[in-house]
Amino acid sequence: MKKKNKKVNAGILIIGNEILSGRTQDKNIGFLANWLNKKCGILVGEVRIIPDIEKIIIKNILELSKKFNYVFTTGGIGPTHDDITAQSISKAFKVKYEYHHEAYQILEKYYGRSNFNDGRKKMARMPKGSSLIYNPSSAAPGFKIKNVIALPGVPSIMNSMIENCKKYLMKGSKIYSSTINLFTVESNIAKQLGVLQKKYKKFIDIGSYPFFRLGKIGVSIVSRSHDNKKLKSLDKDLRKLVKLKKIQILKLN
Amino acid sequence: MKKKNKKVNAGILIIGNEILSGRTQDKNIGFLANWLNKKCGILVGEVRIIPDIEKIIIKNILELSKKFNYVFTTGGIGPTHDDITAQSISKAFKVKYEYHHEAYQILEKYYGRSNFNDGRKKMARMPKGSSLIYNPSSAAPGFKIKNVIALPGVPSIMNSMIENCKKYLMKGSKIYSSTINLFTVESNIAKQLGVLQKKYKKFIDIGSYPFFRLGKIGVSIVSRSHDNKKLKSLDKDLRKLVKLKKIQILKLN
Repeated sequence: MKKKNKKVNAGILIIGNEILSGRTQDKNIGFLANWLNKKCGILVGEVRIIPDIEKIIIKNILELSKKFNYVFTTGGIGPTHDDITAQSISKAFKVKYEYHHEAYQILEKYYGRSNFNDGRKKMARMPKGSSLIYNPSSAAPGFKIKNVIALPGVPSIMNSMIENCKKYLMKGSKIYSSTINLFTVESNIAKQLGVLQKKYKKFIDIGSYPFFRLGKIGVSIVSRSHDNKKLKSLDKDLRKLVKLKKIQILKLN
Repeated sequence: MKKKNKKVNAGILIIGNEILSGRTQDKNIGFLANWLNKKCGILVGEVRIIPDIEKIIIKNILELSKKFNYVFTTGGIGPTHDDITAQSISKAFKVKYEYHHEAYQILEKYYGRSNFNDGRKKMARMPKGSSLIYNPSSAAPGFKIKNVIALPGVPSIMNSMIENCKKYLMKGSKIYSSTINLFTVESNIAKQLGVLQKKYKKFIDIGSYPFFRLGKIGVSIVSRSHDNKKLKSLDKDLRKLVKLKKIQILKLN
């Protein structure tokens, strides 16, 4: 019997004016997308970057949490006035925004009782019913409520927490990926690629991405599928095409 | 008489499976956001990254073009089967997807008549009524239709075309920005920052961003406003706070 593919997807919501102003170059999208694809078989269906404005956060949480199996947010869970992610998610799901007992204890222990000021206490407040995502870098935990996982925006801290999200996620079927790098221009193989995409329509996504390397123009053909056999069959077709067109392949170690 | 601030905003729509899969780290968002902010006084209100799927592109073009003064798209205007931005935008605006006479001439001249194959011709097709955005790198032009500006996804090519977009844009009032880098933790100044944000509520956006530098933890306070006088007044308030709290300032050249 053929095993059915289990498709699981996620949306990513980057909350932060600093990305929209161009001040900070986002590093979280690529990291999360890679981790979700490779480690969890979860496809990222959409990413949005939005400002620190409550009603906008609420709207996007509601839209994305309906649309995808999971929503990952980054940013806005620190101690300052512009950190409004936790309270906005509470409002979106119409649950109380309150101290999480364990988070409070973790933070009180980390800072020491006498240094546990209001800003620090704020980081223990989250939507009622949240589960914690532990933070091995700087104590302040992220949280999971319904299908939303809220993580911090500082990349090194977010990255250190990601494995702690795993227990909340159902895995999707493995996503296989195959790349062939060709020293040619896209327009030289566009027609044939289109034919191959049609042939494997339901099984494989074929992407074509120009590159510049060793002073020459090239194109990477990237194929992604849940079905590794189909991917190998496409690879044979591609190598036939390459031979026919006398195209040089760039081999990378 | 006081000059009124002219607020102009834009949405950015990144079209490409390669960003969602984590294969490619996006570089266009930061570049576009910076350019729009600094060169045009245009605030980026939202960014979305979506897959190469026609109905999704159409939906997002319609939503974002209603929401913002301008929409910048990157990606999907090349010669291959997965380049469907131009035809999707045509469908979104219910106009014909057809050869643009001048674009056709540019590309025919660039490739030479005998090498001007179907893939290359495809790059001359765009929504009827489009204006061209010239491409000094690789000839194939971008286009502007209504308030949507479609650019290529390859960063070096996109960057080389950006100045050619200027003539289609109305400028917003200059956005002033001021940064002060402090060797302290966010939670040490969170309360006072909140008070200052309230004081300048309608005029200034104050953001607070942790950093690691010279082996120490710090926080950058970034203030952005159309009103430079208010910004200077806030800066004085911040320096008072810093003095009071005996916080060291990190001076960057």
